Formats: sequence, C-alpha cells, structure tokens
Amino acid sequence: DFQDSQIRLQETIIVNVGSHFDPATSIFVAPRKGVYSFSFHVVKVYNRQTIQVSLVLNGWPVISAFAGDQDVTREAATNAGLVIMERGDKAYLKLERGNLMGGWKYSTFSGFLVFPL
Amino acid sequence: DFQDSQIRLQETIIVNVGSHFDPATSIFVAPRKGVYSFSFHVVKVYNRQTIQVSLVLNGWPVISAFAGDQDVTREAATNAGLVIMERGDKAYLKLERGNLMGGWKYSTFSGFLVFPL
Amino acid sequence: DFQDSQIRLQETIIVNVGSHFDPATSIFVAPRKGVYSFSFHVVKVYNRQTIQVSLVLNGWPVISAFAGDQDVTREAATNAGLVIMERGDKAYLKLERGNLMGGWKYSTFSGFLVFPL
Repeated sequence: DFQDSQIRLQETIIVNVGSHFDPATSIFVAPRKGVYSFSFHVVKVYNRQTIQVSLVLNGWPVISAFAGDQDVTREAATNAGLVIMERGDKAYLKLERGNLMGGWKYSTFSGFLVFPL
Repeated sequence: DFQDSQIRLQETIIVNVGSHFDPATSIFVAPRKGVYSFSFHVVKVYNRQTIQVSLVLNGWPVISAFAGDQDVTREAATNAGLVIMERGDKAYLKLERGNLMGGWKYSTFSGFLVFPL
Repeated sequence: DFQDSQIRLQETIIVNVGSHFDPATSIFVAPRKGVYSFSFHVVKVYNRQTIQVSLVLNGWPVISAFAGDQDVTREAATNAGLVIMERGDKAYLKLERGNLMGGWKYSTFSGFLVFPL
C-alpha cells in the first residue's frame, strides 16, 4: 500500500530551514506558491532488484529514476527537476518498485524554492 | 548531423515559467544575463550502447555525462552545473554518442536563473 | 592523508562568480551565512575499483556517493544536497575510497547560495 512504499529519510536531514519538511512523514509541504527545485539520490545497497523511485506531487508521480545493476554494492536512482507547487502542496519520494532492504543510508532528498509565483 | 543528435524532450516539460524553453526545438534561451543552473538525466532503455550526452551552450559542449552499462534496462547519463549566459544565449542537450532508440522517457532537463549579473 | 585524497578540479571551472571557489585548493569558502546547494558528479574512467566521494563541510563528510561498476568505462559517483554554512565555512570534495587514476575529466562540482540566513 501507499504508506509502505513511501520512502522515509529521517536520519539524513541536513537542512530544514522553515521546517517545511516534516521528519515524521518525510513529506515536504510548500509554504507558498512557487517554482521548487527537487533533487533525489536513493541508494540501494547489496540488492539485486531493480528499484524505481518517483518524486510524487500531491499523489501523482512527476519524475522517476531507476537503479537496476545487479553487480554493484551501491547504486543510486537519481533525478532532479522543477515543479510548480501551490501553497500546501505536498512532495515526497515513493518507491514504485523494488525495496530498500539495505536501508536509506547515503540517500538524499532536497528541495528549495527557486522563485515565488 | 547536428540536428539529428540534438535531444528533444517535448513531452517531459513540467515547468516552463516565462516560456524561455521552446518546446518545439528543446532549446532554452536565456531571458537575461546571469548564472544559470542546469541539470540533466537522460535515460537509455534496453540499449547496450554507450551514450554520451552534453549540455551545449551556444554550440559548445560544456558538461558531459555517460551511461554505458550493458546489463541494465535503464540507466541515466546525468550531470549538472552552473553556466554564465548572456541574454539570448542558447542551451540544449546533445547526444554526442550512441542513440536513444528506446525514447526519452523518464529523461529530464531543467534549468533556472540562480542570480542575475 | 587528507591532502592526497582531496579531489582537485581546477580545469573544470566554468563559473566562479565572486571567486569564492579557490582553484588552487578546490575549496569553496562561504562568503556569508546561508543555505547552499551543492551538486557533484565525479567520473571514474577505466577503473574497476569502487570509489566513494564525499562532500566535506569543515572537515566532516555530509553527503556521500559511490561508483562501483567494474564493467563500464565511465561511471559517475553523484549526489547533491543543501547545507547550512556560516561565513568562512569550507566545502570541498574528498575521495574517501578508491582513486581517480583516469583523471577528473568530465567531473563537476557546483554550488551556489540558495538564500542567506
């Protein structure tokens, strides 16, 4: 189900100015309307499965990334992009395929307001 | 020839505030002088060839990325960087090597003005 | 030792507005307190070793990336994130594991002030 596949990154938080990222849910809530830049690197570890990770905006996947190499110990599913968010819109990462049994270590998810609209 | 190798990403446009990215040509034209941040993730699919993708500024490649794994279904050639652009300068992606026969799906190309000069 | 493993990227400098990045040392020094965005893509070439690259802030690794595929000619260890820096804080890349005997070609390291604090 949805809750199980959402990626939670609590221990990797480096910066959370304004506290618009909720560590308990790993959801970013836009404080105002604008263009936001998001970047994610989700690392699978000792895992021969393919993973697919999506940046989800209000429940809809907008950007996806894959990591499917069977022979490496660590590989990142990475992508980045700009999205327009209204105040209160929610952005988070979802694991669409595979699992992160090795944990979320070294994974990052960052976003910031590029300019308001 | 040049036109054939330029990467066109029309259907992946998520944000185009100011309409400085031309969907018909996949070329970004700088609206003013400044430092711009660009990021690209070009995904090859079921393709054993190595691809090389460059961010091209006014005809000159400034940043390149590679994807050359033969054994994965999807792999991204990804890079990012800052460039100074004058008003009217053009930035676009060029496929320097290989092909994207599997299509551009999941590929992204994003850019924004970091600060004006 | 520390100096030997620090990654130096002198010839890849594209933009250095404000000259806060020192080409001689490859260290970025924050000109003021704020949230900074950093992105790096370090490419290993014809190298079967795994490399681990970290973004180091005042001597502490804050973000890491890996490239460990043995069968590709070029592969990037890539990650990105936001960090809070005080004026005078230093950020640079460190090669934690492996080597870049094939050189730093195509590698990038970029950072900019997202907003002051």
